[in-house]
Amino acid sequence: MSGELDTTMTATMAALGARGRAAARRLSKSTPAQRTAALLRMADALEADTPAILAANALDLAAADERGITGALRDRLALTPARVAAMAAGLREVAAWPDPVGRVVERRNLANGLKVSRVRIPLGVIGIVYEARPNVTADAAGLCVRSGNAVFLRGGSEAEHANAAILGVLRGALEAEGLPPDALMTLPSTDRAWLLPMLHAEEFIDVIIPRGGEGLIRFVTANSRIPVIKHYKGVCHVFVDAAADAEKAQAIVLNAKAQRPGVCNAAETLLVHADAAERLLPMLAEALRAAGVELRGCPETVRLVGATPATEEDWFAEYLDLILAVRVVPDLDAAIAHIERYGSDHTEAIVSEDPAAIRRFLDEVQSAVVVANASTRFADGGQLGLGAEIGISTTRLHAYGPMGADDLTTLKYVIEGEGQVRT
Amino acid sequence: MSGELDTTMTATMAALGARGRAAARRLSKSTPAQRTAALLRMADALEADTPAILAANALDLAAADERGITGALRDRLALTPARVAAMAAGLREVAAWPDPVGRVVERRNLANGLKVSRVRIPLGVIGIVYEARPNVTADAAGLCVRSGNAVFLRGGSEAEHANAAILGVLRGALEAEGLPPDALMTLPSTDRAWLLPMLHAEEFIDVIIPRGGEGLIRFVTANSRIPVIKHYKGVCHVFVDAAADAEKAQAIVLNAKAQRPGVCNAAETLLVHADAAERLLPMLAEALRAAGVELRGCPETVRLVGATPATEEDWFAEYLDLILAVRVVPDLDAAIAHIERYGSDHTEAIVSEDPAAIRRFLDEVQSAVVVANASTRFADGGQLGLGAEIGISTTRLHAYGPMGADDLTTLKYVIEGEGQVRT
Repeated sequence: MSGELDTTMTATMAALGARGRAAARRLSKSTPAQRTAALLRMADALEADTPAILAANALDLAAADERGITGALRDRLALTPARVAAMAAGLREVAAWPDPVGRVVERRNLANGLKVSRVRIPLGVIGIVYEARPNVTADAAGLCVRSGNAVFLRGGSEAEHANAAILGVLRGALEAEGLPPDALMTLPSTDRAWLLPMLHAEEFIDVIIPRGGEGLIRFVTANSRIPVIKHYKGVCHVFVDAAADAEKAQAIVLNAKAQRPGVCNAAETLLVHADAAERLLPMLAEALRAAGVELRGCPETVRLVGATPATEEDWFAEYLDLILAVRVVPDLDAAIAHIERYGSDHTEAIVSEDPAAIRRFLDEVQSAVVVANASTRFADGGQLGLGAEIGISTTRLHAYGPMGADDLTTLKYVIEGEGQVRT
Repeated sequence: MSGELDTTMTATMAALGARGRAAARRLSKSTPAQRTAALLRMADALEADTPAILAANALDLAAADERGITGALRDRLALTPARVAAMAAGLREVAAWPDPVGRVVERRNLANGLKVSRVRIPLGVIGIVYEARPNVTADAAGLCVRSGNAVFLRGGSEAEHANAAILGVLRGALEAEGLPPDALMTLPSTDRAWLLPMLHAEEFIDVIIPRGGEGLIRFVTANSRIPVIKHYKGVCHVFVDAAADAEKAQAIVLNAKAQRPGVCNAAETLLVHADAAERLLPMLAEALRAAGVELRGCPETVRLVGATPATEEDWFAEYLDLILAVRVVPDLDAAIAHIERYGSDHTEAIVSEDPAAIRRFLDEVQSAVVVANASTRFADGGQLGLGAEIGISTTRLHAYGPMGADDLTTLKYVIEGEGQVRT
């Protein structure tokens, strides 16, 4: 894929961009009650149009079958009445979330009599680039409408029919509530060639949020002229400290790895303090293996419990599967250094009964979410009370960690005076 | 300037980047007291080394004279003992600012017993790209040290000797306090060719803040793989509403335009409601002309008070000078539409005694700072109580408007449990 731009595509993108920008302006002037009504209508419309959405999805599944797509990938693509109902339920949850637009988050009176406040406003136009899962279309649309933003939804070609059907339903619902359907936009085609004009449309799109595999994220980062909030992989660690409680360690390691291995907040690497390795590693290994987890270990792990010898790549790996890299480390410093070197700034947990070790781990590890004595699986917008989430940012700028509707806004300063001037 | 990368330069940049990254890690683990001590020592060192800094500046001034640089540009380049003392005073002010690193901004207990908090942490490594003014070196260094960030300071070639001298002094002061001097980095040369390797060093730099002219900002935005927070031009507007008080209108318009015309929060365009034009425009024009301001007007302005006829370019212009574009608009909607079309998202003010008009203007104008009945010149970190500022962001992402030390941090989630797992 080259970095060159086709001028016809650029012109088409500009025309679409102008429509999105105009819709964002109208949407930002709508009331919270209007946006709530639109979200509820979007949910109803999805349920009412379930047959059409499933019919479109059948075309995607037929194409996937032709291409020989099977297993987890095909499963993520497939819609059922229950999955459409889940999208509708997600939209109703977002409808119940307090609307952030216009919320005053700070208010001060200056000595010169000026009243200064900071007020939440929409970011403007969001660009979301994602892969196979069609539910992202409904989830992202809901969060953007809640926060007063227009959005370009660029889903993967695998789900193009389902995405188009869902988008059509949602646009119709917006229009029926008197809100601009162009608040929900897409590109003329799912062809990857259209990504570049989108990523260069800095006049029309204010932030790009890519969700997907390493190749997609790299391409977006390398080519975007628009600021990017990456939702990158989760190479999450659990560190079992010397002072770890055996029962907590076992429950947390098992839950972090095996409760739902295919998600980004599942653990991928277990670090064990050398002073606890003989006491805890055999028990942990036995429990993990009983849950079907394959271990890939450092030499000390291999010596203590047997395991496939880990290679350098294993420390970087996001398996998203029942595989766990295991390393015995000499101390807390070595655990933190390992996380700094191999981690992805997502979520890391310590299991320990030593308050000093906990304090140091929570202070010094600079990932988006740091956890003491609980599972990494709590790094989730729903679990943390943010409402629905657009994803988990591993970019420090603007939002770090789970991002909800509030994170799709920014703050403007409002200054109210009675004729004050500067001297 | 081409978009191609030299591999030797990329390797050099990677080596520098790794040093900056390591220093950022050390700095983030230092205490607020250490950072305060370092800032005070940086201030003392600047004053103590004033003769060396002025000698370096003399080389820059001689080069400027050879190139025939005069007027405001030469003035911004020139240092004096008082200007060095002002830099030191700025560092002492930053030293007195509450250190943001480690500050808990939110704390909640979840129903499952988890304690969740959000804690400020440094962004990591900042890249600042700026032009002639050498005081930016000290100001930016101070704000980055206060917020626990390492920084790459890439100043313009015009000030290269002064910038190098200031940087050397500040690095020495950091080292003397036991903090890593590599927290303050620069590029091997001020040659513009070095910008590209810097803008591609996404592994080592977390955010780029460009401060400067349109050409610089465009180049940075077009070429950066690192998120950019733009500090773009200020095409600020004052709207004099139908219900404006005459005295306030005159004081505010004069102050916004003429008190310091060379800065980004000075007004560049005056919009006057048609119903107030005959009553107020003659008086405003007289006062502005008495202050030496040239008017460029729409046809109605020309008819009412005489003026150079304004062209389309005048509505986009950031004069930074005693020139003001003036337009009579039919109503509030037209004023808002003009600002949306021609503005730069910086600062806009309304003068009115009508609460409904004020409310609509403050709600609907989505610039970083919106003002009612006060001068646009209050859009300033110092005036708004943020302490020193790194500039005024016109990018909605992360920070919008005046940015202080707190805006150079992000929030991480800290979750504390007693063995909780997800079910």
